[in-house]
Amino acid sequence: MDSQKQRISILGAGLVGSLLSIFLAKKGYSVTIFERRSDMRKAGAIGGRSINLALSRRGLKALEAVGLKEKVQESCIPMPGRMIHDLEGNLSFQPYGKEGQFINSVSRGGLNELLMSEAEAHGVEIRFNHKCEEVDFDTATAHFENGEKVSADFLFGADGAFSALRSAMQKTDRFNYTQEYISAGYKELTMPPTANGDFALDPNALHIWPRGEYMLIALPNLDKSFTCTLFFPFEGKISFEAIKTEDDVQQFFESKFKDALPFLPELKTEFFENPTSSLITVRCKPWVKGNTALIGDAAHALVPFYGQGMNAGFEDCFVFNELLEKHGAINPALLAEYEALRIPDGNAIADLALYNFIEMRDKVADPMFVLQKKIEKRLNELFPKKWVPLYTMVTFSDFRYSEAHALGKKQQAIMDQVLAQPNIEENWEGLDFDEIVGRL
Amino acid sequence: MDSQKQRISILGAGLVGSLLSIFLAKKGYSVTIFERRSDMRKAGAIGGRSINLALSRRGLKALEAVGLKEKVQESCIPMPGRMIHDLEGNLSFQPYGKEGQFINSVSRGGLNELLMSEAEAHGVEIRFNHKCEEVDFDTATAHFENGEKVSADFLFGADGAFSALRSAMQKTDRFNYTQEYISAGYKELTMPPTANGDFALDPNALHIWPRGEYMLIALPNLDKSFTCTLFFPFEGKISFEAIKTEDDVQQFFESKFKDALPFLPELKTEFFENPTSSLITVRCKPWVKGNTALIGDAAHALVPFYGQGMNAGFEDCFVFNELLEKHGAINPALLAEYEALRIPDGNAIADLALYNFIEMRDKVADPMFVLQKKIEKRLNELFPKKWVPLYTMVTFSDFRYSEAHALGKKQQAIMDQVLAQPNIEENWEGLDFDEIVGRL
Repeated sequence: MDSQKQRISILGAGLVGSLLSIFLAKKGYSVTIFERRSDMRKAGAIGGRSINLALSRRGLKALEAVGLKEKVQESCIPMPGRMIHDLEGNLSFQPYGKEGQFINSVSRGGLNELLMSEAEAHGVEIRFNHKCEEVDFDTATAHFENGEKVSADFLFGADGAFSALRSAMQKTDRFNYTQEYISAGYKELTMPPTANGDFALDPNALHIWPRGEYMLIALPNLDKSFTCTLFFPFEGKISFEAIKTEDDVQQFFESKFKDALPFLPELKTEFFENPTSSLITVRCKPWVKGNTALIGDAAHALVPFYGQGMNAGFEDCFVFNELLEKHGAINPALLAEYEALRIPDGNAIADLALYNFIEMRDKVADPMFVLQKKIEKRLNELFPKKWVPLYTMVTFSDFRYSEAHALGKKQQAIMDQVLAQPNIEENWEGLDFDEIVGRL
Repeated sequence: MDSQKQRISILGAGLVGSLLSIFLAKKGYSVTIFERRSDMRKAGAIGGRSINLALSRRGLKALEAVGLKEKVQESCIPMPGRMIHDLEGNLSFQPYGKEGQFINSVSRGGLNELLMSEAEAHGVEIRFNHKCEEVDFDTATAHFENGEKVSADFLFGADGAFSALRSAMQKTDRFNYTQEYISAGYKELTMPPTANGDFALDPNALHIWPRGEYMLIALPNLDKSFTCTLFFPFEGKISFEAIKTEDDVQQFFESKFKDALPFLPELKTEFFENPTSSLITVRCKPWVKGNTALIGDAAHALVPFYGQGMNAGFEDCFVFNELLEKHGAINPALLAEYEALRIPDGNAIADLALYNFIEMRDKVADPMFVLQKKIEKRLNELFPKKWVPLYTMVTFSDFRYSEAHALGKKQQAIMDQVLAQPNIEENWEGLDFDEIVGRL
């Protein structure tokens, strides 16, 4: 299909739908977004998703491609590493990468509003309060709850983890689909600025209180507050279910998150008033049916533990845009290549995100994990092209997620052998690093 | 809930729903089945499912528990083994188990009609042309397409691989769900009796033409016909997609199924007129929500390669009935035990069924597979309690599927070592069988 004046419908004015619309509008398409919620810029309300997100290289690269990188970075707080809080409140800082590498805490609502307004500035029409209920794939027709039917030349489902387009696809023959919840949920808690208007904690870090089966984390906001998130089992001895009273909350935080407690003045009310949300992973195949395609969370909803949900969705847009430049139009060859590239990458980052919960809540507190980071840092300094730590591949590089995942497994197998050597804690600097890299 | 006069709704008057209704009616429940199709006993039409099925021990045990085993067996054709057809038409017979063990070819439609009529004879009401569209879990209320809403004390979804109850559950939070299609589909073909009114092939076998990536099978029917099923890739070089003309069909069957071809007079028309159906595996968790529960294919749709779909569903009913006797009523303790027992078993038989496609289409033609069968037969003769071949555990025993699956993996690992010994073909009778069993 010729790019000029072709009509594109996008379901969902979230982060991915809004960014995608800008890419397409810049290519000359006539783009309409249908969003089931009302306009968050007017309502002032953000719908049930996390408050801040970690923006890193893949997301920034996509924003740069539409000329918005600098503008977004103005609202970012750099986090060059994790700040680990132990039970006694002792702190230790673990850098994410090399000097100068950092991820960015950014407001979901702020970024979404910016992208919607930019989209409109590029001629995109956003029609709010349009809940899609059914889709005709071949005619790219969306049927809305209000009775409207809108056809287009192509339709994207950028409508998130509970995508209406994907639901329609699921009813068709030979659609492979998995939705999987982890046994933990999460609850957001507010850590306001201190009495004298400062951040309660160091703002240039992602704070983690790793406690084995669960954890508390905190990301900084521009208003000098932090948003804390408790990732915690739904059921069991230590769980949301088991914490029943304000006293339970108080005692639990006193014994497990002592140094955070003084900075959580509303804890006891927020704990019971704020929702407990679940954490879903979605995988499916195909992503394309007729003249429709899934993108972002609609195609590959992730748990948040690698900070890659938005970044993966933005990379989908970036890759789609590159394919559009290569193929010149949204045609079967482009769509086949989009699926061939992004389905394995979506599955890989889904796996990595699930794994990273264990790393964040548990391993970061393990001295052997810290040692591994040191050894891998040295390997990377000596062989910057050959040995790139997994976190760096995922967060600071252009490696395909699927390649990073495969290479990361190989590297981990080697590191497991290295760390099993006797007295490795004392002797690691004497390792034969050439030989180690040679095992790859 | 007290068993007397409690109202039970069952979605689906298929094999499992009908049998379940008999179990429940015999316990004193007031049971109504809602079936989306019309009454197959009047319409004379069977809805889009396979024509015959393999009934084995688990299914028979459940039928026995409601007093129907003998009646059903009257319509069964025993199949004590597989008859393998090679490219040249040479035959070799592989028994399924010991002397006297066999599976049964039975008509899906005939068995279903029998069960429906038995259900009605036990006071069960079957309401046809009732398509469920939504379910309220706590009130066990089904909403039907015709506008009716029917509440009950408890509701079962026995409504198959595309269950309406499960669809409703899938929209709720923390419902884990997977639907997965294999890359092959199937097409049924008719092998009528010969001109002089005989079976075209030996009726006391399940016939297989194993061809590596695909296969043809044939099961006998009471009218002396066979129903053949071609399991074949949808796409690719050798696939449904690639066979375009009647000549293509003729040539393909001539080169691959030469000895079957003379007995398939309608092949060239049937191949294009009969549907090509897909093969789905469904897994989910939980199976219980409020006052509703999934059972049979609705909970665990299987691919057909272990001949266990109906048997697993009937075993669900048998186990539910046992739990009803243990707990005295459908209560939370019963439902928790039902899930704890049957979800792992459903997942295990789903795995086993997927694996068995490879065995049927490929391994049965491998001399090493035949040798393994011989060695395992010997092991079973020497140690009947300790070494039971996997096929026997699944098909002729009461082992839980999950136990059979786990033990089968252990046994296969041992057999892989045994078969890797040099000259095992000649030397296998001299093996130290005591030592082999000791490895378990």
